[in-house]
Amino acid sequence: MQHQPVPAGPDAGREFVLTVSCPDQRGIVHAVTGVALDLAMTIVDSQQFADASSGEFHLRMHLAREGEPLDVAEVEAAVAPLAQRFAMTAAVHDLARRPRVLVLVSRQGHCLNDVLFRVQTGSLPIEVPAIVSNHEDFRELAAWHGVPFHHVPVTPATKPAAEDELRRLVREHDADTIALARYMQVLSPQLCADFPGRVINIHHSLLPSFKGAKPYTQAHDRGVKVIGATAHYVTEDLDEGPIIEQDFRRVDHRMTPAELASVGQELEAMAFARALRWHAEHRVVLRGRRTIVFD
Amino acid sequence: MQHQPVPAGPDAGREFVLTVSCPDQRGIVHAVTGVALDLAMTIVDSQQFADASSGEFHLRMHLAREGEPLDVAEVEAAVAPLAQRFAMTAAVHDLARRPRVLVLVSRQGHCLNDVLFRVQTGSLPIEVPAIVSNHEDFRELAAWHGVPFHHVPVTPATKPAAEDELRRLVREHDADTIALARYMQVLSPQLCADFPGRVINIHHSLLPSFKGAKPYTQAHDRGVKVIGATAHYVTEDLDEGPIIEQDFRRVDHRMTPAELASVGQELEAMAFARALRWHAEHRVVLRGRRTIVFD
Amino acid sequence: MQHQPVPAGPDAGREFVLTVSCPDQRGIVHAVTGVALDLAMTIVDSQQFADASSGEFHLRMHLAREGEPLDVAEVEAAVAPLAQRFAMTAAVHDLARRPRVLVLVSRQGHCLNDVLFRVQTGSLPIEVPAIVSNHEDFRELAAWHGVPFHHVPVTPATKPAAEDELRRLVREHDADTIALARYMQVLSPQLCADFPGRVINIHHSLLPSFKGAKPYTQAHDRGVKVIGATAHYVTEDLDEGPIIEQDFRRVDHRMTPAELASVGQELEAMAFARALRWHAEHRVVLRGRRTIVFD
Amino acid sequence: MQHQPVPAGPDAGREFVLTVSCPDQRGIVHAVTGVALDLAMTIVDSQQFADASSGEFHLRMHLAREGEPLDVAEVEAAVAPLAQRFAMTAAVHDLARRPRVLVLVSRQGHCLNDVLFRVQTGSLPIEVPAIVSNHEDFRELAAWHGVPFHHVPVTPATKPAAEDELRRLVREHDADTIALARYMQVLSPQLCADFPGRVINIHHSLLPSFKGAKPYTQAHDRGVKVIGATAHYVTEDLDEGPIIEQDFRRVDHRMTPAELASVGQELEAMAFARALRWHAEHRVVLRGRRTIVFD
Repeated sequence: MQHQPVPAGPDAGREFVLTVSCPDQRGIVHAVTGVALDLAMTIVDSQQFADASSGEFHLRMHLAREGEPLDVAEVEAAVAPLAQRFAMTAAVHDLARRPRVLVLVSRQGHCLNDVLFRVQTGSLPIEVPAIVSNHEDFRELAAWHGVPFHHVPVTPATKPAAEDELRRLVREHDADTIALARYMQVLSPQLCADFPGRVINIHHSLLPSFKGAKPYTQAHDRGVKVIGATAHYVTEDLDEGPIIEQDFRRVDHRMTPAELASVGQELEAMAFARALRWHAEHRVVLRGRRTIVFD
Repeated sequence: MQHQPVPAGPDAGREFVLTVSCPDQRGIVHAVTGVALDLAMTIVDSQQFADASSGEFHLRMHLAREGEPLDVAEVEAAVAPLAQRFAMTAAVHDLARRPRVLVLVSRQGHCLNDVLFRVQTGSLPIEVPAIVSNHEDFRELAAWHGVPFHHVPVTPATKPAAEDELRRLVREHDADTIALARYMQVLSPQLCADFPGRVINIHHSLLPSFKGAKPYTQAHDRGVKVIGATAHYVTEDLDEGPIIEQDFRRVDHRMTPAELASVGQELEAMAFARALRWHAEHRVVLRGRRTIVFD
Repeated sequence: MQHQPVPAGPDAGREFVLTVSCPDQRGIVHAVTGVALDLAMTIVDSQQFADASSGEFHLRMHLAREGEPLDVAEVEAAVAPLAQRFAMTAAVHDLARRPRVLVLVSRQGHCLNDVLFRVQTGSLPIEVPAIVSNHEDFRELAAWHGVPFHHVPVTPATKPAAEDELRRLVREHDADTIALARYMQVLSPQLCADFPGRVINIHHSLLPSFKGAKPYTQAHDRGVKVIGATAHYVTEDLDEGPIIEQDFRRVDHRMTPAELASVGQELEAMAFARALRWHAEHRVVLRGRRTIVFD
Repeated sequence: MQHQPVPAGPDAGREFVLTVSCPDQRGIVHAVTGVALDLAMTIVDSQQFADASSGEFHLRMHLAREGEPLDVAEVEAAVAPLAQRFAMTAAVHDLARRPRVLVLVSRQGHCLNDVLFRVQTGSLPIEVPAIVSNHEDFRELAAWHGVPFHHVPVTPATKPAAEDELRRLVREHDADTIALARYMQVLSPQLCADFPGRVINIHHSLLPSFKGAKPYTQAHDRGVKVIGATAHYVTEDLDEGPIIEQDFRRVDHRMTPAELASVGQELEAMAFARALRWHAEHRVVLRGRRTIVFD
C-alpha cells in the first residue's frame, strides 16, 4: 500500500541534530555555534534549557550543511574538543537516518494502525522494520503495509525464551528502538535494562494515576473528570519510567469503562505518535525520572 | 463594594429543583412529571442518569411554578407518595434560597478572591455569611466585601478547640456548606463526619495523583506534562473524597514548581467555582466515591 | 480484514430512539413517558432541551423494549396521537438499523482511514456500503476493507454528470447519508437541496473562521494561536451549514502551514468521527443554522 | 491592600532581555553570545526562530550579569556593532524596569479585577500607574488597590477631547503601554497610530471569528461548539491587529449568550493576563499581522 508518495527526509550529510548536556557555565553556546560556523552550517533551530535546580545545561541544535555533505564522524570530530572542555555529553545525528522502530502489539490495534498510517503517509519519520505480537490478530494488517510480522507467544513458562527471541529480532532487524503499541506483557527487568531509553510504552492513564491493570476501570471507579494517556520510556519500575508526553480529555459520570476506553484510544494514539516523533527527531533528553522535550 | 447590581435569583416559591434517586424501574419519570403537572409546573430542565452498573436511577428536575407561589413543603408533600412507591430518596429545593457557604482560607488568596468577585457580580449563586482563617492576611479583603472575618488560629494543641469554634461559627452564621478555599489545615475525622457532603475542598493536583503536601513539587519531580486541580467533597480519607470537578492544563519541563503553582492557581479557582455553583444548584449527586454531576 | 469481532448492535425491535420537537408546553414528557409505559419500554437515556429563545422543546429518548420485539411502525402508531396533540415533529428509529453512509474522498486519506478503522473495530455504528472518489488513490484501501470503490472523476464540464452518477450510487447502495471525508469538490446547490440534513462535511478550520480554500494557510497568515476542525451539515451556502462538532488545539508561531495541516488531521478525524456517531445515533437536531446535540 | 509581600524583581543592572531581528545568516548567535561573554553574562534563557518563509531570524536572550551591575546603555553599546554588521533591529531591556501599563476599562470588571489581583500578589510583572474609565463603576476598586482612577467620559462629540485627555494621562503617568481591559470604545485611527505595538486589547471571541459587537451573541447564533478570547495589539483595523494569545473552551447548545459570556470571562482574563506578561517580559515580536511569542 504505497499509493501515496512518502515525503523523503533530507539527503545524507545535509542535516544534523546535535544534542549537548553539561554543567551550565558561560561560553557553551558561543563555542558550539563556533563549531557550526567552522563547518559552514546554518542553524535551522536551536533550543536550550538551563536547569537552575540541577545546574545542568541542555541544548538541541538542528544544523543544515551547505556545500559538500558531511558525515556524522566529521561533525563528531569537530565537537569532540568542546565535549572535553565543557564536560559535555554530546551526540550527533544525521537526520537522513531514521530510527528503526520494532513495534510490539497485543490485541488492541488502534496505536499500531495509527503508527502505520502515519509512517505510510510520511508524517512520522521512523522506519518500522517489523511488527512483533504475542497474538496473530494483526498479521494481515502488517502484510498489507508490507511489514514483516513475527508471532512470539508468551506464557509464564516461555517468557524468558520469548524475550530471547525478541532480542534476536531486534538484532535481525537492526532496530534501535522498541515501541510498545498496547503490548500487554510486562517486560522483565533484564530486558528493560538491556535497552535503556530505547523502549517507549503507551499507558492508558494519566500517570502517576492508575498504574497497572485496567486503568479505565480504575478511573471510572474513582470518578475522575478527566482521563488521559501517557507515553513514557520503560524502566524496571512498571509505569514509573520518564514521561515523554500525555494527552487528556474531559469525561463525565455517564461514561462506562468501555466508553472511557473508546475515548482513550484517541488519546493513546496521539500521545504515542508524538512521543515517537520526538524520540525520532532527537528532541527528548532523559534526566532521571524526568524528560526535557525540545518540541 | 456593591457598585455592580447583583442579579437577583428567582422569587421564593417560583422555581424548584427536585432531585430523586431510586432503584431503576419503569414509570418513574411518568409519575414525577405527573406530580409536576398537578402542581402546574413547567419543566425548565431535566437530566437523568440510569446507572446500569448499580441499577440506580437519578434525576434532577428544574421546575417553574406558574400562578401562585408554592412553598417547599407543599412540593414535598406532593412528591411524598412517589418516594414511598419507588423507594426514592427525594429532595426539593427552592432556588430562591441560596446556600450559605462559610469560606475557610489560609494564606493563598486566589480562590477566595475569585469566589468573592463572582458572588459580588452575581455569577455564583451563593451567600458567604463569613470568612474564617487561621491567619490574618485577608481581614481587609473581607472587610472590603462587607463579609465578617473570623481569625481562628490553629496549633496542634488548640486544634480541637479551633474546630469547636468552627462548629460554633457554622451555627452562628447558619451555614449549610463549608468551602475550603486553600485552607491548609487537615480537618479531623470527627469534623468531616459532622458535615457529610457539605464540605468542599480544592486540592492542587489531578487527584488521585499527588495527594498530600506540595503537589506541584511532586508534579515537577515526576515530570508530568499536565497539571490540574480537583474540587471534591471532604471525607475522613484525606484527598480521597468524591470528585466534583477537575480542570487541567499542559505544562513542560521548563516550569519550576513555583511556575506550576502560578498556572495552577487559575485551574484551582475555576474548578472550585464550578464545583460551588453545581453544589449550590443541586446538580451534584453523591454516590459512594463518585459523583453524578448534572451540569 | 475482519480479524476482530465487530460488536453487534441490539437485535431488531429491542431498542429505539424517539426524537421529538414541538412548542414547549406542560405535559409533553408525561405524555411521552406514558406511551413508553404502555409499550412496556424502559428509558435507557433521556435528554431534553427547552429553548427559551424560541419557545421550542426538544427531546431524545432511548427506549428498551422488554418482552416481544416491536417494529418501528408499532411505536410510531403509539406516538402518533401525541404528535397530533402537541404539534410535534416526532421520529422513531430502531437502533438495530445502522445508517448507510456513502463516503466521498479526494486525495487526503486520514479521515477515511479513521472511519474505516472505527467501523471495522465496531466503535462507529454505521455501515459504509461504498466509497466514492474523484481520484484512484484509495481503491486499494477500500478493497482491503471489502468496501466497493467507485471512481467518479469530476471536471467543470462533467460535474453535472458526475453528480448524477453520485445520486445513482446513493440509490444503488441504499445510502441515507453522505459523508465528505475531505472531498475537495463543492457540491452544487441542487445536490445540497436533494439531501438536506443528510450530507456531513469536515472543514479544516474552526468555522466561521477561514472558510473556503487553504484554511491552514489562512490560519498561518492570520497568526492565530489555536486551530481546529468543524464537522457540519452541508447546505447551499459553502461552509455555512449547521455545526455538529468542533475540535481544536493550541499552536504557535513556529508551525508552518504544512505542520498546522498535520496537527489538524488529528482534529479533523476526531471531529468527523464524533459527528458521524452522533448523527448515526440520532443525537443531532437541526434547527436553522444551529444544532442541538444530545451527546 | 498590600497585605501580601509582592515578589521583587531583579535588582537594576543584573538581568537583561536582548531581542534581535535580522535577515537570517550564519554567525548571528555566535556573535551575540560573544558579546554576552565579553560582558560576563550568563544565558538564563534563549529562544530563537528562523522564519523560513520570510528569511528572517529572531532571537530573545535573557542574560544575567555577574559582578558589578551594568546599565542598559552599556549593553546597547556592546551590541551596536552587531546591529550594524547583521542589519539587526536590536533592543536591550533591564528586567528591573517593569512596564507601566495604563489600564482602560468600561463596565465589565473581570479583567481589571484579575490584573489588579495578579499585580498585587506579584504574579504579573507590571506597574499600573492609573486606571482610566468612561464610567465611574470601578473608582472604589481602584482606591482599594491604591491606584489613581480617572473618569474620562466619552460621547461622539467629546471623543477627540477624551482622546487628548488620554494622551495627557499617558504622559502624566509615564505609561509605556495601554491595556484595554474590556474598554468598549473604539480608539480613533490616530490614537492607534500614536502607540503602535503599545496598546493591547482583549476581544471576547476567537478572532477572526465574530469581530465587532456582541461576539457571544454572534457565537450563539452561529451555533459554534467552542468559544474563546483573543488578546491582540490594537491597530487601525478593528479586531484585525496581531494576535498575542487566545484561550478557548468547549460549549454546547444549552448555553445562552449570557452563559457564554460568563464562561468567556474566565477565558478573557486568562488570555489578557498572559498577553500582558509576555509583553512585559519582552517575549512578543511583532511581524506584520503575526506575532512571534517566545513564551
